[in-house]
Amino acid sequence: MKEYLYKLEMKTRDYECDIQGVVNNANYIHYLEATRHEWLVSTGISFRKWHEEGIETMVSEINIKYKASLHGQEEFISCLNLHRDGPRFIFDQDIYRKSDMRLCVSAQVSTICVIDGRVTRGDEVLPYLGKFLENA
Amino acid sequence: MKEYLYKLEMKTRDYECDIQGVVNNANYIHYLEATRHEWLVSTGISFRKWHEEGIETMVSEINIKYKASLHGQEEFISCLNLHRDGPRFIFDQDIYRKSDMRLCVSAQVSTICVIDGRVTRGDEVLPYLGKFLENA
Amino acid sequence: MKEYLYKLEMKTRDYECDIQGVVNNANYIHYLEATRHEWLVSTGISFRKWHEEGIETMVSEINIKYKASLHGQEEFISCLNLHRDGPRFIFDQDIYRKSDMRLCVSAQVSTICVIDGRVTRGDEVLPYLGKFLENA
Amino acid sequence: MKEYLYKLEMKTRDYECDIQGVVNNANYIHYLEATRHEWLVSTGISFRKWHEEGIETMVSEINIKYKASLHGQEEFISCLNLHRDGPRFIFDQDIYRKSDMRLCVSAQVSTICVIDGRVTRGDEVLPYLGKFLENA
Repeated sequence: MKEYLYKLEMKTRDYECDIQGVVNNANYIHYLEATRHEWLVSTGISFRKWHEEGIETMVSEINIKYKASLHGQEEFISCLNLHRDGPRFIFDQDIYRKSDMRLCVSAQVSTICVIDGRVTRGDEVLPYLGKFLENA
Repeated sequence: MKEYLYKLEMKTRDYECDIQGVVNNANYIHYLEATRHEWLVSTGISFRKWHEEGIETMVSEINIKYKASLHGQEEFISCLNLHRDGPRFIFDQDIYRKSDMRLCVSAQVSTICVIDGRVTRGDEVLPYLGKFLENA
Repeated sequence: MKEYLYKLEMKTRDYECDIQGVVNNANYIHYLEATRHEWLVSTGISFRKWHEEGIETMVSEINIKYKASLHGQEEFISCLNLHRDGPRFIFDQDIYRKSDMRLCVSAQVSTICVIDGRVTRGDEVLPYLGKFLENA
Repeated sequence: MKEYLYKLEMKTRDYECDIQGVVNNANYIHYLEATRHEWLVSTGISFRKWHEEGIETMVSEINIKYKASLHGQEEFISCLNLHRDGPRFIFDQDIYRKSDMRLCVSAQVSTICVIDGRVTRGDEVLPYLGKFLENA
């Protein structure tokens, strides 16, 4: 397993599985979001506080590769790194099945900052995020 | 089928089904909520407008009986009536499978009004809801 | 806090919250299900194994009282007891906010056994569940 | 609006919105899946029938761009085209807000065929999908 900025142990729930008996694709988007939010809190940054201050951070694009399936009540490790590409802060997120450390999902999640409905260059959140960037 | 104040045709989606191949129990709570909100809009009442005016309507209790299962991509009819019991406005909601009109779910959803964090006697919303009450 | 057969520490996720900023009602149904399934696994009983053996356990009725709201990324303790009422195995489930141990949700979830599409008297699962019954 | 193979009118539900008041990102993945499944049914192809015949079609990759937000109880039009790229059948899916036909989401969803746990060249489903391919 490569180096990550943050790792979170999670566990699937049966209701997240669909008729094929595996976690439905949309739920990985939920796992990825939960991981980013938990990471933010772990750094002392509050997504909701930004929201209250008028800074909306929005996901502008997700590229997600499904490599192996998770089943019900299965433990996994959700990992992330962060890099910047112009106005976009891009989370590189991987999900590993815990039992065999197999890579199940690999995603790049691009986020942008919006203030008063306009996309910014992202400098507002740089004081918070700068030290975590891989390419800082 | 008995008389209802409002009926909404809906259709299940495959992702709402779980490993047993039927719609997961929690999704019926979603269907019931969606039906109440659509009914509110159909009456000209906006749930979000109430929210903006400081009137929170909250569900205080749900009693739901699961009588038959819906499967993926199956059409159903979601019906509601409304009656009042003290401070509670109670939605009597039934869900019928469209193909054979079998009753799948029957629920009573109790809602209360909250202003500034305190439960009211419900009179704030009576001008809006009064004419729809079965026991008016 | 009263005595419980099983307690599970969980944490809400932001995506489970709705526009009112609190966990959407349907998600508590998910939490309750996840708790029952985790309890089953903790006892060595597998819900999926029963499914493979032709024993379907189905929720026939839920009565849920919403007493206080959970917000995003908030820890809670999900507790359950079990008693039998004729063919129904009834889970008494309570959810407490961890920070102040306030009771947020109290529910009774009735489950029945179905084999070949017919509701049984529940004796098939008694060897597994009998020792856990409050009124055994 | 460009030409599409299939268009489906849908409507958001309030419970799909999160604390920011807009539809949560994961729910668009649900909308896209529901659209593909409805399209399959409209063609006479059954996803579940394939499943019963041992042909699993799986999503291997999704690239989704979020361009504008949908709010609660908002109507939208979910459109798709299909092209093939080697073993992958790629759905080009766009979601437009109905009121102003603004493009809200644009996605490419790559699907592969799996039989007995092995990815195939996709020829099994070509008799069903071939006539719908843009680059046929």
